[in-house]
Amino acid sequence: MENFSFYSPTKFVFGKETEGKCGALVKEFGGSKVLIHYGGGSVKRSGLLDRVKTSLADAGVQFCELGGVTPNPRSGKVYEGIDLCKKENVDFILAVGGGSAIDSAKAIAMGVCYDGDFWDFYSGKSRPKKALPVGTVLTIAAAGSEGSGDSVITHENGMLKRGASGDCIRPKFSVLNPQLTTTLPAYQTACGATDIMAHVFERYFTNTTDVQTTDRLCEAVLLSMIEETPKVIKDPNDYQARANIMWAGMVAHNNIVGVGREQDWNSHGIEHELSALYDCAHGAGLAVIMPAWMTYVVDHNVMRFAQMACRVWNCKMDFSDPKKTALEGIAAFRSFLKSIGMPINFSELGAKESDIPYLVKTFGLGETGKTGGFVQLTSKDVENIYRLAL
Amino acid sequence: MENFSFYSPTKFVFGKETEGKCGALVKEFGGSKVLIHYGGGSVKRSGLLDRVKTSLADAGVQFCELGGVTPNPRSGKVYEGIDLCKKENVDFILAVGGGSAIDSAKAIAMGVCYDGDFWDFYSGKSRPKKALPVGTVLTIAAAGSEGSGDSVITHENGMLKRGASGDCIRPKFSVLNPQLTTTLPAYQTACGATDIMAHVFERYFTNTTDVQTTDRLCEAVLLSMIEETPKVIKDPNDYQARANIMWAGMVAHNNIVGVGREQDWNSHGIEHELSALYDCAHGAGLAVIMPAWMTYVVDHNVMRFAQMACRVWNCKMDFSDPKKTALEGIAAFRSFLKSIGMPINFSELGAKESDIPYLVKTFGLGETGKTGGFVQLTSKDVENIYRLAL
Repeated sequence: MENFSFYSPTKFVFGKETEGKCGALVKEFGGSKVLIHYGGGSVKRSGLLDRVKTSLADAGVQFCELGGVTPNPRSGKVYEGIDLCKKENVDFILAVGGGSAIDSAKAIAMGVCYDGDFWDFYSGKSRPKKALPVGTVLTIAAAGSEGSGDSVITHENGMLKRGASGDCIRPKFSVLNPQLTTTLPAYQTACGATDIMAHVFERYFTNTTDVQTTDRLCEAVLLSMIEETPKVIKDPNDYQARANIMWAGMVAHNNIVGVGREQDWNSHGIEHELSALYDCAHGAGLAVIMPAWMTYVVDHNVMRFAQMACRVWNCKMDFSDPKKTALEGIAAFRSFLKSIGMPINFSELGAKESDIPYLVKTFGLGETGKTGGFVQLTSKDVENIYRLAL
Repeated sequence: MENFSFYSPTKFVFGKETEGKCGALVKEFGGSKVLIHYGGGSVKRSGLLDRVKTSLADAGVQFCELGGVTPNPRSGKVYEGIDLCKKENVDFILAVGGGSAIDSAKAIAMGVCYDGDFWDFYSGKSRPKKALPVGTVLTIAAAGSEGSGDSVITHENGMLKRGASGDCIRPKFSVLNPQLTTTLPAYQTACGATDIMAHVFERYFTNTTDVQTTDRLCEAVLLSMIEETPKVIKDPNDYQARANIMWAGMVAHNNIVGVGREQDWNSHGIEHELSALYDCAHGAGLAVIMPAWMTYVVDHNVMRFAQMACRVWNCKMDFSDPKKTALEGIAAFRSFLKSIGMPINFSELGAKESDIPYLVKTFGLGETGKTGGFVQLTSKDVENIYRLAL
């Protein structure tokens, strides 16, 4: 096990009708003038935005608002938010929505406290040290941004999708009401579930040995997702299953299932190029890429994939042929994704073989020409993984 | 799943030689004058106390010290600490030791900020709202106090062992260096492991249905403990196993494995009377009580015990006789405890049958005459559980 620091100071308020508490929570964490930041019209139509405003007003908290965050949130909206916060003297940002609204809120929060261009944090030019406090009211179980210190933004100049990380952007509080997710269509629900599972797998495949406790926690989240996801695909109103998934989404990404070990994240990187270019759902892109990546790297540590197969997918260990077991686990993952309605290849996703050279180029391996992680990948490897996903 | 709030804002700094960071951590969390609070001579003999002092001095942090905390920490030492903090204008308490030193530090931290008797928080007369910030340097994996908002103190007037809880006593930071635990004797190590597993079981046995994610996380911690504990009993210097156990001890008790459900805690309550009266190790008392409690209440929900048997102890489900499977799981737990050197009955613990009436009396069921939890217990039930443990 490697030395690590784990810091997840977010207060999670979970359950039915909890959005009514967000005014009191903003006050608890010192906010007096809030920017409510959200995406499209669904939070308006559902009445959620009004309930949030009522809660803030009841607590005596002032607010302004900025909607229009898109999936794969863009830099333009971030610049707009930074300007608005400065103009309105905002001291707290409340994201109402999914990972896109939250990631955009985090970017604004950093940008307000920084003299340079907020994109410096995403291009790797600078590391965030200070940000406005952020709170969230989550409407989809997926990105895990409600409990993470991460944010992913796409810059409109070149459609580059990049991430930034820092403890200063971990939300002060997150309100998680599973009722808010029952109106989500099955496809979006499944995309979210895939993202959650991918967050665990990116941490599960590691070269660090002897991290039993973290391994078991990873497997716990996966087992719960495998049991609960089909329930909500069948019945979107299954509150209990929605609740288990919503909480699993947080646990999968606040890093409690990732501590003490080297992590991978290459599937996320390879996928980001797909959703940046085609504007497809991140989870759908992951459903296409992740099993292809697994198949490509299985020989790097057959026993780790066999462990996943046995502990997570209930495969029987073939002691005379561990790789057979390992491949069975990967096949089980792909079958599961198919069963919840996910695309599992380029054409189902609407991606084109002819774009692969462009995707590889924008993936950007940097000066070393290799990625880090579980298996170091060259440009040729990345190309091969895209081709395996055809 | 029930509505819940989960708040674990402690910064965990984990790994080799991490005690050298505690000076910087105290400063990060605003401390300028520290009370170092610890138990017996082992932290002095090992050189740990000197390393902590060096770290504080290097960070320019002033300090005073108060040692002498005993296992099952006493009220007298708490009063002494409160007086010292007031006299020395202490603004941060750093516990160096195990659960006893940490719990005593939390009691002092509350007492300094309270006009009345600190015992009010333990007798249930008052709820803590404010406390001095507390940090910890942990030396034994057991109580989980390094990540919890709980503290247990024994009042010398009547040897009453009682707990207090509140977010304000969650540590600001906890330094977890598994190297510090390699010198622990096997018996103490096993007592700690038992306590860790008990913290999970107290949360696992619940009447709340549909809490799959939390169930799986409980099982994950138990599976890791079952695999890692025998390794350290065999080889106390197994760093990796020590590390997995130390982290599992935190995860078992910061409540991430307990959210969204009613919990039990009757085994802890029943045990507390044993360790208060005989001053035995809390973990040893739990090893005697917990399997007896399980056996006594198994009929309340046979399938939950069968689930534990199959998922945690790898028993085969007997579909024609689920209770047989349930009892096999309890037997497997008892065998495990025996295999790591724990006492499993009154005489091995040094407890006396003739004291049972006194134990039942001091257990204190309050006005209702019943406990809450998974199964409500009357005085007669408590007596029966003590007798089952003979």
